[in-house]
Amino acid sequence: MRNETFVLDRASTSRPAARGQTVSPLDRALLKMIQGAVGSDPIRIQLWDGSTGYASRAGAPAVTVTIGDRATLLRLLWNPDFWFGESFTRNRLSVAGDIGTVLESIYRNYPERGALPGWLGRIRAALTASNSVVRARHNIHHHYDIGNDFYHLWLDNALVYTCAYFPSPSLSLEQAQDAKMDYVCRKLWLQPGDKVIEAGSGWGALAIHMAMRYGVSVRAFNISRAQIEFARSRAAELGLQHRVEFVEDDYRNVTGQCDAFVSVGMLEHVGLPHYHEFGEVIDRVLNPTSGRGLLHFIGRNRALPLNAWIRKRIFPGAYVPTLGEVADQVLEPWNLSILDVENLRLHYAKTIRHWRMRFDSAAERVTKMCDEEFTRAWRFYLAGSEAAFATGWMQLFQVTFARSRTNQIPSTRGALYQ
Amino acid sequence: MRNETFVLDRASTSRPAARGQTVSPLDRALLKMIQGAVGSDPIRIQLWDGSTGYASRAGAPAVTVTIGDRATLLRLLWNPDFWFGESFTRNRLSVAGDIGTVLESIYRNYPERGALPGWLGRIRAALTASNSVVRARHNIHHHYDIGNDFYHLWLDNALVYTCAYFPSPSLSLEQAQDAKMDYVCRKLWLQPGDKVIEAGSGWGALAIHMAMRYGVSVRAFNISRAQIEFARSRAAELGLQHRVEFVEDDYRNVTGQCDAFVSVGMLEHVGLPHYHEFGEVIDRVLNPTSGRGLLHFIGRNRALPLNAWIRKRIFPGAYVPTLGEVADQVLEPWNLSILDVENLRLHYAKTIRHWRMRFDSAAERVTKMCDEEFTRAWRFYLAGSEAAFATGWMQLFQVTFARSRTNQIPSTRGALYQ
Repeated sequence: MRNETFVLDRASTSRPAARGQTVSPLDRALLKMIQGAVGSDPIRIQLWDGSTGYASRAGAPAVTVTIGDRATLLRLLWNPDFWFGESFTRNRLSVAGDIGTVLESIYRNYPERGALPGWLGRIRAALTASNSVVRARHNIHHHYDIGNDFYHLWLDNALVYTCAYFPSPSLSLEQAQDAKMDYVCRKLWLQPGDKVIEAGSGWGALAIHMAMRYGVSVRAFNISRAQIEFARSRAAELGLQHRVEFVEDDYRNVTGQCDAFVSVGMLEHVGLPHYHEFGEVIDRVLNPTSGRGLLHFIGRNRALPLNAWIRKRIFPGAYVPTLGEVADQVLEPWNLSILDVENLRLHYAKTIRHWRMRFDSAAERVTKMCDEEFTRAWRFYLAGSEAAFATGWMQLFQVTFARSRTNQIPSTRGALYQ
Repeated sequence: MRNETFVLDRASTSRPAARGQTVSPLDRALLKMIQGAVGSDPIRIQLWDGSTGYASRAGAPAVTVTIGDRATLLRLLWNPDFWFGESFTRNRLSVAGDIGTVLESIYRNYPERGALPGWLGRIRAALTASNSVVRARHNIHHHYDIGNDFYHLWLDNALVYTCAYFPSPSLSLEQAQDAKMDYVCRKLWLQPGDKVIEAGSGWGALAIHMAMRYGVSVRAFNISRAQIEFARSRAAELGLQHRVEFVEDDYRNVTGQCDAFVSVGMLEHVGLPHYHEFGEVIDRVLNPTSGRGLLHFIGRNRALPLNAWIRKRIFPGAYVPTLGEVADQVLEPWNLSILDVENLRLHYAKTIRHWRMRFDSAAERVTKMCDEEFTRAWRFYLAGSEAAFATGWMQLFQVTFARSRTNQIPSTRGALYQ
């Protein structure tokens, strides 16, 4: 079961304890159905006794997946979207080789239109993602208050936890995050003295970048205390505390007026039922004649609820919208004009690959900080996310918009590329 | 009533014959309501006897609008969206000065959210724009079979009747149309040998451009015979008849397979109830793994039916969608990934300004070719269109999309601007 291509997934080579169950012909028949999920890719899926439906004529497998017991086998058939991640996390399913390869294969072999139709996806999404102010606070603490030390282990120095931008493929993660922040500023054609409101400011990197490099003043809203504290102290170190204000509050309570509104990586946490409200906030604070804004968010081609395992373990309350949902429900009611949309999904696949490499190097420290199960959950989440963007299962949209009547907009996009 | 800024609107200075009706206090009260539509702009609106609600302290008016009789006054109050255009066309309302100034003022003074809510707009749109194959043929003949000679009077040489692209503001109309066609080709990263299907090919300029400059082969569909004949003979003159095939057929009957699908300025004629069908055609013909496409269409920020007068006189069956409607109804059902959206509305305002100048110079010839009413209708339509794009009332979207699983997409947009 040793594997030469193993790079990213050291800890997962530990095979779950065999549970002494005898493998029956029924188990083997069920296994065959699971093997089908990876098509003809060189991925061996085996039971706890080593029996497999993998055809040896397909050559040596690049990765081997071992299902640890019968309960896991049945769960994988019942609800694979949830139980693949959960069984891996609980160490009842092991992967020798790169789990990313398995996840990419599953996404690639998923029937193109096997998912729920749009309207059903929308209903399920509405039922599963109602984020009140209190609920939102709980959800965000779940993910972002794990502790800054944890994120320092595998993000860049400035702790930018959103898709980077690689104008040249050889950029480091740090350079690409810097390039992304600059790209956002240029898409908003920020001018010295502009007032900017940011909703969901993470560890403050973009707010600080805007103030420092573009001479604007920023009010940045966030409900994660751990992030806010880090952001404030970084702004103070840089002497920017008078130009960047970090406010610990929900986006719904955003106040003030701005020339530009920006939100990077927060819409995913808003939930479809709150899009109208989110648009209302933008409309309330944005300069009524010349205001413009940018939304940067994970999207998808078709309306579907977010993977159940991700919702339980990683992002409670999250929902990933289609571009149409954002256009219809966030921007249309307020007559905002969409100026520019860019899909950066391959940049996100690359960003996450960087994170995974760093996470893997830090895996032992993560396990000491939390526990083995936590490490396994995060490894699965990062591998799954990279695979989702690499296979076109997920998209990353940057949407630039403006008040409908302003003609003070760049006449072409050429300046973004000079 | 003479006006120095008068440039574009020579023929409309003729004032309609006064009809000898005595102006009553009620007429003057109604007039005041109409004057409100242009806010405090220097536009004098007056009745057939010269009485006006225009405040002389606002200075000399830039434009004067004369309402020719009481029936026209009442119609303007009853349904201004229809009767302003119709009264102008029938010469029962005259404009001294640039009618474009009046239309821009009306758009700018329109209450930001005074229009129909989205859902009502969608229902009205669905009721008013069901274009069967037969109906579509009738509608398209109405507009495009007026005669190529007519369009030669005021379009560019290659008869491109869609938004141009001005990468530099000083380009001529011809240069800007050429730049637009090239921009479309580059957005589709066309490669020599690619097969392209074009739905709605106008007079064939884009199809010919693609074949001649990018070495692709094109099948172009159109239901306007006058356009097809012109396009075929132009392709033959250039020796391109083996690489560009013009097919006289409805988009629903498009056959073949292609690497790239393109449609410029046709979606407006499809009608919302047929978007699903339109997407189905794209899905049917597009290379299932690496295919990509571009839709170029007039859009708007909020779902509304098209102006009733435009639908009657100019574009029967037309509907102008929101970006969300196109995303949801054309692309989402087929799991197509939106890669890039650009709003070029100010380029369209500029394009139409060029057309208006040329149209105005040719107005006498147009009147000889058709009649005075036709000339007035087209003048109103062109002025209204320019105003709609200049004020943000209408948008012009270019949407680039691709099959969801292909990673053979440009990593950045930089190459478009080199």
